[in-house]
Amino acid sequence: MASRVRDQSQAGRNGLKEKVLTLDTMNPCVRRVEYAVRGPIVQRALELEQELRQGVKKPFTEVIRANIGDAQAMGQRPITFLRQVLALCVHPSLLSSPDFPEDAKRKAERILQACGGHSLGSYSVSSGIQLIREDVAQYIERRDGGIPADPNNIFLSTGASDAIVTVLKLLVSGEGRARTGVLIPIPQYPLYSAALAELDAVQVDYYLDEERAWALDLAELRRALYQARDLCRPRALCVINPGNPTGQVQTRECIEAVIRFAFEEGLFLMADEVYQDNVYAEGSEFHSFKKVLMEMGPPYSTQQELASFHSASKGYMGECGFRGGYVEVVNMDTDVQQQMGKLMSVRLCPPVPGQALLDMVVSPPTPSDPSFAQFQAERREVLAELSAKAKLTEQVFNKVPGIHCNPVQGAMYSFPRMQLPPRAVQRAQELGLAPDMFFCLRLLEETGICVVPGSGFGQREGTYHFRMTILPPMDKLRKVLEKLSHFHTEFTREFS
Amino acid sequence: MASRVRDQSQAGRNGLKEKVLTLDTMNPCVRRVEYAVRGPIVQRALELEQELRQGVKKPFTEVIRANIGDAQAMGQRPITFLRQVLALCVHPSLLSSPDFPEDAKRKAERILQACGGHSLGSYSVSSGIQLIREDVAQYIERRDGGIPADPNNIFLSTGASDAIVTVLKLLVSGEGRARTGVLIPIPQYPLYSAALAELDAVQVDYYLDEERAWALDLAELRRALYQARDLCRPRALCVINPGNPTGQVQTRECIEAVIRFAFEEGLFLMADEVYQDNVYAEGSEFHSFKKVLMEMGPPYSTQQELASFHSASKGYMGECGFRGGYVEVVNMDTDVQQQMGKLMSVRLCPPVPGQALLDMVVSPPTPSDPSFAQFQAERREVLAELSAKAKLTEQVFNKVPGIHCNPVQGAMYSFPRMQLPPRAVQRAQELGLAPDMFFCLRLLEETGICVVPGSGFGQREGTYHFRMTILPPMDKLRKVLEKLSHFHTEFTREFS
Ligand SMILES: Cc1ncc(COP(=O)(O)O)c(C=O)c1O
Ligand SMILES: Cc1ncc(COP(=O)(O)O)c(C=O)c1O
Repeated sequence: MASRVRDQSQAGRNGLKEKVLTLDTMNPCVRRVEYAVRGPIVQRALELEQELRQGVKKPFTEVIRANIGDAQAMGQRPITFLRQVLALCVHPSLLSSPDFPEDAKRKAERILQACGGHSLGSYSVSSGIQLIREDVAQYIERRDGGIPADPNNIFLSTGASDAIVTVLKLLVSGEGRARTGVLIPIPQYPLYSAALAELDAVQVDYYLDEERAWALDLAELRRALYQARDLCRPRALCVINPGNPTGQVQTRECIEAVIRFAFEEGLFLMADEVYQDNVYAEGSEFHSFKKVLMEMGPPYSTQQELASFHSASKGYMGECGFRGGYVEVVNMDTDVQQQMGKLMSVRLCPPVPGQALLDMVVSPPTPSDPSFAQFQAERREVLAELSAKAKLTEQVFNKVPGIHCNPVQGAMYSFPRMQLPPRAVQRAQELGLAPDMFFCLRLLEETGICVVPGSGFGQREGTYHFRMTILPPMDKLRKVLEKLSHFHTEFTREFS
Repeated sequence: MASRVRDQSQAGRNGLKEKVLTLDTMNPCVRRVEYAVRGPIVQRALELEQELRQGVKKPFTEVIRANIGDAQAMGQRPITFLRQVLALCVHPSLLSSPDFPEDAKRKAERILQACGGHSLGSYSVSSGIQLIREDVAQYIERRDGGIPADPNNIFLSTGASDAIVTVLKLLVSGEGRARTGVLIPIPQYPLYSAALAELDAVQVDYYLDEERAWALDLAELRRALYQARDLCRPRALCVINPGNPTGQVQTRECIEAVIRFAFEEGLFLMADEVYQDNVYAEGSEFHSFKKVLMEMGPPYSTQQELASFHSASKGYMGECGFRGGYVEVVNMDTDVQQQMGKLMSVRLCPPVPGQALLDMVVSPPTPSDPSFAQFQAERREVLAELSAKAKLTEQVFNKVPGIHCNPVQGAMYSFPRMQLPPRAVQRAQELGLAPDMFFCLRLLEETGICVVPGSGFGQREGTYHFRMTILPPMDKLRKVLEKLSHFHTEFTREFS
């Protein structure tokens, strides 16, 4: 090695120095990370937007980003009460302004009281402001019909992403056949595959059942686990409910079965429940893993380890940019929980404005508050519109020959399966592209519609999908759905 | 393994199930992480505060947290202009209010225009809002006397912490003797040791020279590097300037020498410059690594890889809670830079309010703006007060027999060396505590003053230090300094 260093230094004097950090010398785990939601297709969408701004002629006048679950970017208006309180927190001299409702002021004062120096500008405790953790605990109790939640088991985070990665990080250990394996659904939200690649853990895929509206199938879960045991040590099971990208909402029976399975097989459960407020289908209802676990009684309620994640980015508020989120841990080993707190303290604290925002989400105005009526109306309107858009999406897609779309029971996405003609598949392969990537790129170039190919989330070999959000405003969504359907028909014709 | 699993499952039925995640099965790297700034002493401080609130009698009436560089927690007021703009961004209906200056409104509108859906509530591009990256680039150019900065080389982050960990993550690879080593100063800011432990890289210590006001000594750097080469592959060199916890400001010559050293030895340079606005000592001046590197000309300016970090948490604004920061990379391999962007995209984006705040820091009001006078006055006042507190700290400590305090040339901390009587050292050892931890715990219990023991930052074997911020308000700081000095004298007497 010393000689290699000398060589480099020599090269340096000749002006031909190698870089220290190159693709070859870089962390190999980083190289394996992929993140489709922000991948090449989104890069291309950015370029197209730039070209449009520069006056380049295109067959469309705007790029429509149906690639990411970002409601406000698609024109959804922030909930007034949330922003009023935040403005008061940010700039407390507004507390004397007559333009803010009295409950917003009370709320802001309460939050500021709990901040160091009574300012959002101070670091908080690493696990988050105590008062807010208490409010989160109360929210969980209300949500779960009174089942207690302990603020000490709640850690606020920089979006749910941060908390998910932190819990995964704790779980990773071992080498070779003892390497940690983590079961994730396929299709999945690619944060999971990316984080597992980064952490050098083994991704263990279990396939959701498209024929049964993306239900979680216990037999398939068992198959995945048992096969994986030859290669690694599976230690955790991730469930996304409501599902991203698949939009299903799990039944209570299914959740019970998953919990029983995790318990019997010795798996740590991770429940990604960031879409818990986004349930649209009749007959579907959100059941939290925590509630089901507790209602199952011992030994499950007293022993099964669970981490449940929530976020301020989704729901009716869609405040993605604030990066508010939390994780509740249940039955976690006390020492490990302490280690988790320590780990989080290295990055000091989650963004305090995001914490404040989360507080409003978990303790919104109540009927006796002056802001209640408006808050409730705004909230309902958003959810009603999302619900209508979920139905519309399913209807329109299912009229198109060659497209099949499961009901969008919850979350913010449809994930339709499409048939692609063999010649299109062949052309894609010649171009070195996944067939659905080829489709999505062509769609983008010709219509300006940006959706993410199914290959970015995982899908059964030989099937093709894309993920499209239901977030564009109703009028626009209708046009997008029609354009996309039309494009698929034309594309199929072109390659037949 | 299969049998182990069966055993667990068996145990489960008997109600004696092992946890999946225990200290023994947890990620072993996490276990090695330490983070003194938020360690046991801070935990104890929290408990004491609770006890005081509950009316427990103590020899003090409040806990004074001189343990963390958090200006607003110590009572510093936010800069008005920053909060005005933020309030407008958060709640745009304020844009029609007559209570906000016109330049604040212009600024807010400009930021909102650059946000998806014109809202802080949208995710931004992962590397940060383009407009803000451009403003950062212009700030760097002004700071560095016109040397160009490219917005594409700037990545906004969740505080500087996030960017530092990301760059370290890229650098980590190899095993055994090929494992990445990273040179860090001792004493250091413990984010570095914590991140290296978490990433399983080798921490290579180089000692700052306390006798020369914590100067960086090239011979020591060389010793550290050459010794480390027997054990690992050193690939990066971290420098903190102005220093935390040591408060030194590096001379231009020293920076040049460090750059030459890094170049010759093939080391990636990481310059932690979050205290660039915090320089107090006469004769001291902040020189950015980027500027010095560029002025040195080729091959340094064209080849030496550098990452420079800045933050909205320090300086005159002290907006820690917003988690705004950035890294500028220089001469980074293009492919690696792209990988870094990809890595950041997994967590979606840095908090948008923090990005907005950073924008105001890098493009504050100019002389023709209505807010300029007040902004300038507030900024000057904070920095003048910090400067006075830096001097006072040094003066008071150096009057105490057994305490030696280097000048606080910059940053926000003093790091005095103290003599501890052998019997105190012995007592500490009996208690299983580092001697300076023993001192600091006693100090906290008896005076309510919370400072961090030197052992949390690293120090030469057999020397003892503590880190104390200069952030308490002037009056309080004076009292704290006197109390602490008195306590040291008493402590010395007690154990003589
Ligand atoms: C299933 C799922 N989990 C987690 C996240 C992370 O969201 P955030 O980090 O914004 O809270 C998302 C975002 O789209 C998601 O869809
Ligand atoms: C030297 C140094 N670097 C980085 C940081 C991280 O600051 P932040 O993440 O708040 O930007 C700090 C905070 O105290 C610091 O002292």
